[in-house]
Amino acid sequence: MKRFRVGVCGGSGYTGIELLRWLKQHPAFEVVFVTSESQAGKTIGSCEPYLFEYADMVYVSLEAESNFRGVDLVFLALPHEASAAITPRFLQAGIKVVDLSAAYRIKDKTVFEKAYGFTHPSFDLVSEAVYGLPELRKERVAMARLVANPGCYPTSILLPVLPLLEEGLVNEGPVIADSKSGFSGRGRKTDIPGLFSEMNENFYAYSVGNHRHQPEIAQEVSFSAKREISVIFTPHILPLDRGILSTIYIPFDRDPTKEVYAVWQKSYEKAPFVRILQGRFPQLKWVQHTNEVHMAFTYLASQKMGVIVSTIDNLVKGASGQAIQNANLMMGLPETTGLIIQKGVE
Amino acid sequence: MKRFRVGVCGGSGYTGIELLRWLKQHPAFEVVFVTSESQAGKTIGSCEPYLFEYADMVYVSLEAESNFRGVDLVFLALPHEASAAITPRFLQAGIKVVDLSAAYRIKDKTVFEKAYGFTHPSFDLVSEAVYGLPELRKERVAMARLVANPGCYPTSILLPVLPLLEEGLVNEGPVIADSKSGFSGRGRKTDIPGLFSEMNENFYAYSVGNHRHQPEIAQEVSFSAKREISVIFTPHILPLDRGILSTIYIPFDRDPTKEVYAVWQKSYEKAPFVRILQGRFPQLKWVQHTNEVHMAFTYLASQKMGVIVSTIDNLVKGASGQAIQNANLMMGLPETTGLIIQKGVE
Amino acid sequence: MKRFRVGVCGGSGYTGIELLRWLKQHPAFEVVFVTSESQAGKTIGSCEPYLFEYADMVYVSLEAESNFRGVDLVFLALPHEASAAITPRFLQAGIKVVDLSAAYRIKDKTVFEKAYGFTHPSFDLVSEAVYGLPELRKERVAMARLVANPGCYPTSILLPVLPLLEEGLVNEGPVIADSKSGFSGRGRKTDIPGLFSEMNENFYAYSVGNHRHQPEIAQEVSFSAKREISVIFTPHILPLDRGILSTIYIPFDRDPTKEVYAVWQKSYEKAPFVRILQGRFPQLKWVQHTNEVHMAFTYLASQKMGVIVSTIDNLVKGASGQAIQNANLMMGLPETTGLIIQKGVE
Amino acid sequence: MKRFRVGVCGGSGYTGIELLRWLKQHPAFEVVFVTSESQAGKTIGSCEPYLFEYADMVYVSLEAESNFRGVDLVFLALPHEASAAITPRFLQAGIKVVDLSAAYRIKDKTVFEKAYGFTHPSFDLVSEAVYGLPELRKERVAMARLVANPGCYPTSILLPVLPLLEEGLVNEGPVIADSKSGFSGRGRKTDIPGLFSEMNENFYAYSVGNHRHQPEIAQEVSFSAKREISVIFTPHILPLDRGILSTIYIPFDRDPTKEVYAVWQKSYEKAPFVRILQGRFPQLKWVQHTNEVHMAFTYLASQKMGVIVSTIDNLVKGASGQAIQNANLMMGLPETTGLIIQKGVE
Repeated sequence: MKRFRVGVCGGSGYTGIELLRWLKQHPAFEVVFVTSESQAGKTIGSCEPYLFEYADMVYVSLEAESNFRGVDLVFLALPHEASAAITPRFLQAGIKVVDLSAAYRIKDKTVFEKAYGFTHPSFDLVSEAVYGLPELRKERVAMARLVANPGCYPTSILLPVLPLLEEGLVNEGPVIADSKSGFSGRGRKTDIPGLFSEMNENFYAYSVGNHRHQPEIAQEVSFSAKREISVIFTPHILPLDRGILSTIYIPFDRDPTKEVYAVWQKSYEKAPFVRILQGRFPQLKWVQHTNEVHMAFTYLASQKMGVIVSTIDNLVKGASGQAIQNANLMMGLPETTGLIIQKGVE
Repeated sequence: MKRFRVGVCGGSGYTGIELLRWLKQHPAFEVVFVTSESQAGKTIGSCEPYLFEYADMVYVSLEAESNFRGVDLVFLALPHEASAAITPRFLQAGIKVVDLSAAYRIKDKTVFEKAYGFTHPSFDLVSEAVYGLPELRKERVAMARLVANPGCYPTSILLPVLPLLEEGLVNEGPVIADSKSGFSGRGRKTDIPGLFSEMNENFYAYSVGNHRHQPEIAQEVSFSAKREISVIFTPHILPLDRGILSTIYIPFDRDPTKEVYAVWQKSYEKAPFVRILQGRFPQLKWVQHTNEVHMAFTYLASQKMGVIVSTIDNLVKGASGQAIQNANLMMGLPETTGLIIQKGVE
Repeated sequence: MKRFRVGVCGGSGYTGIELLRWLKQHPAFEVVFVTSESQAGKTIGSCEPYLFEYADMVYVSLEAESNFRGVDLVFLALPHEASAAITPRFLQAGIKVVDLSAAYRIKDKTVFEKAYGFTHPSFDLVSEAVYGLPELRKERVAMARLVANPGCYPTSILLPVLPLLEEGLVNEGPVIADSKSGFSGRGRKTDIPGLFSEMNENFYAYSVGNHRHQPEIAQEVSFSAKREISVIFTPHILPLDRGILSTIYIPFDRDPTKEVYAVWQKSYEKAPFVRILQGRFPQLKWVQHTNEVHMAFTYLASQKMGVIVSTIDNLVKGASGQAIQNANLMMGLPETTGLIIQKGVE
Repeated sequence: MKRFRVGVCGGSGYTGIELLRWLKQHPAFEVVFVTSESQAGKTIGSCEPYLFEYADMVYVSLEAESNFRGVDLVFLALPHEASAAITPRFLQAGIKVVDLSAAYRIKDKTVFEKAYGFTHPSFDLVSEAVYGLPELRKERVAMARLVANPGCYPTSILLPVLPLLEEGLVNEGPVIADSKSGFSGRGRKTDIPGLFSEMNENFYAYSVGNHRHQPEIAQEVSFSAKREISVIFTPHILPLDRGILSTIYIPFDRDPTKEVYAVWQKSYEKAPFVRILQGRFPQLKWVQHTNEVHMAFTYLASQKMGVIVSTIDNLVKGASGQAIQNANLMMGLPETTGLIIQKGVE
């Protein structure tokens, strides 16, 4: 198998560490550098002692010259603004980029800058960037230099919903996505609400009506539907490590159950990470530590309402696993490389 | 303070134990018997060693003759069918009943029997039973012989929603209640899904479209609105001990925020357990081990959607605390007796 | 009941907040000020929205002049160094002090300064300070101006062990205390190891052989034994909010079970918060949110080893509850005031 | 790579399911049958929907004739008595056995029958059975027909302790092992103490002085030391899914730190799953979902006491992972096969 040299930018946050975990067993990607501004100069082992395979590797600064030479692809697990600043330099050096930040997800500059609060220094790249949902845009991802890796909440909502919109199954909406995420989705920032005793045995909604993933979801929903569809999105935080479960409400005039499953089965026939459940609803524990998305549908006839429940692991399919899946396609590898252990071919 | 003799029927489940916890510090209620069919003859201390105050009290059978003599009020924390069978006998003996089961909540016999799967032996009492939301029906509760204590999910949904319906603020609906409950709401039944390792780090929706609390919620919503309102209710189970958070979606043509808060403030002006939050959404940790309900509202103008978030402790306001609040009113006591510690009057 | 005016110094950490929770229902103590250097000038409600009873009270600085006037007693839930600096000023103003820091616990200046790393500015007060284990030193606490409230781990270990030493039941030792604490014992400092996702599903030993509570435990053990006894103490952190369980190993040449229980029963005959368990070992859930300590003993005859298991709630009996118990005694009140709800006297 | 046909007996408990999880990615072992007495006749998918790779495989009875034909090796994740009954039949059919029960661990029949409470029907096989700690007994395991897979607690204690005993570093003892296990170590039995709400936020010691793993540990300790060494073992249960941390106390007259590390390094030089930590103590989170054991040592000079902290995942190194490691050796495979993903050889 051909091997590629990859870098991980931002290797001391949760998505960066999750990238390192998966990449240590990836047969085609060799991690040649890992950046961390806060830990630069220290060994990874001194900071994250459980990453034994990287114990003696030293965190470097994002600015290190060598990061730009002899590297095939970089994963950016950086703050949005840092991604927007550094991406052009990697691309100029001929290095492909999978950006796990939101820097290149939103196509409308005004919407982006309102949501993220800074002037985008490289917005011209947005038009080139491919929104990386590989199940739905495999060819475009394969040809991309720059992939905008989708947000965790959007991934859990868009994978079940977009095919239904594209096939015209949904009338007007609204689409209401009531989403619940594990704590790690919040990132590794240190503040009082992040402390164990504040979150343990707790549960709450946050950013009600103004979460940054709302415009991202609405944009993709409208692209697929080819018209405005009203999207309501309410995120909540769960007292557990990882996983997102989205409960999605869509009105239907008559029972669309058969069509929904037919559309899903057709759309995801060749999608190794999608599991379509019938007769049972998914549980978070079934997807943790996998790159899978699970989805199920039911129709409430009296209320003329369809209900989808979908689950992903926010750090895997919602971030680092999907990033590797995109990178695999960008480098011409099977999308499952390093993400599924194939029986009998170890 | 006048004192009353009370019995707890079903004292080995979670709501029964929660009743015992609160009653041990109730200044006016003396627990004179506790029943348990599975533990009859054993001391409470041998079964639940942390209930030190009841250590030497012996569980009796529900059928024990003495349960029907010299008792002022009984709390029934029994299976629905057992409640329906025993209630007439307590009433005939002149004993008031607060029933924590669903036996007397549903006014339509067909709906009840479909949801609960047995022929109701005392359905004639349903018309007399008061659905015990004391904040909204204080006088009726005070005069009742038989109170049907509301379900935990319905309590979390109805308290914020009913006043809005009664004041005509809501047009058509649908009202979508996406509810998340702590594990104890499931009861103390022993099965594999109830084991710690199955629930810990897990989260899922269940009974989607067919939970027994759906007709209960729909009934009360329609009573208050004086017309059919479509109600969608999806329960989920959280990996924590106690608490329900309901995220409730109601469409509004224009921003009703001021009216919503005005109606809530008026309805709950004298309600000691209701806290109306403005500018922040409630968290489960804030209500645990209290008889309070917290509620907040926001309007999503672009989507013309109102979002309510409400929280209760499912074992307290959602069950045993509300039962004591009802019992207080039935015995002519202040509703907070034994539920709020008054500074300076210990 | 006579009422007293009390202050809480350090009201934004876990022990300060726990003090506020208990004091809001204390019949004799009125909280007249709460300090917080980081939040001074803000309302308590804006920082800790669930403390509804204190919603409009404003955090003041420790230095505010009014803190020193018309106050009967202060609780210091401050960093050790801040306690050591401010205590003399409260005492000079005629205000009694219960210090929840370690500033006045260690009688040997060298040992103290080695363990705590600063030069003690008021070490002369140490000789006056009473180490506040009210079950064992009730009279001395009642007469004290200054009580050094014991550490959480020491409380869990000393209450079962000291009476055995005082009665001469223990030969040489060593006494090995393997202790496990809930997360809140660590305080509310914000750092990466404190984040939910780092602690959840995790467990570990820390400060092995060099925890600051080791000299505190060793000092009290030797005082009671009237000779050096070797003490080994290993703290661990549990993925739960509150509680300490200590498993304590003491060698005995022959079975001392009867004597152990006899000594405990005699020592704690009149101790309302001590529960001596026989035939079962205590569980953390049984003491949470109480001021109780539970203890049990067994003897392993083949190995000539005694095993004690003890439990407390680290924030209550291990800190704020014990502080109130001490304060009650210092003000001439029954030690249970505000800590146990008396049936029938509300 | 040569492939072998294996069976899993007892595939609906936690260790059986963990075997299935690891075996689905094992390159040399093909699972040809899975037994479950309670679920026989049902598909695995209908019982454990997340085991997608086994969805259509049908649970068979342990007695099914075909289980005894064309199979190379069986894993027994059965009750002790069932293992003791069926093992001779597998061996007679020429099938190798890795027994995860305790049936063949204890060499003294009286000790065994006292601890396990039944008359052993095939005790003659005990002398042949190899106690399968592959790090210490690699050659013997490789030649075995029958491996007694060690208990989870013993594995966590014996791996760090036995080499010290064999090298004569330990004088007299006693060896005190204070062990804490995740909930899954308890198995999947349904009872009230196993319910989520009973275990969550809880922690306790159990079977103090009489746990069945005590004689197993004592036996191996005495074998290695070649004399009686007193062993005290106290198990506790943690509110988390998986992992055991053992804190082990051994007296030493003088500081043995260098020798301890030298012995460990020599003993485990070629042990791919052993990680020897210096300067830090292990955390449970670092071993979960791995077949590793971590160990560290410190010496408390004043108390003349050595402290070891060791960690394993109770379901992997403590059960199913170690079973596969043993099976690999028995079939002539590298011991890491299917347990470590080798970079670049997928």
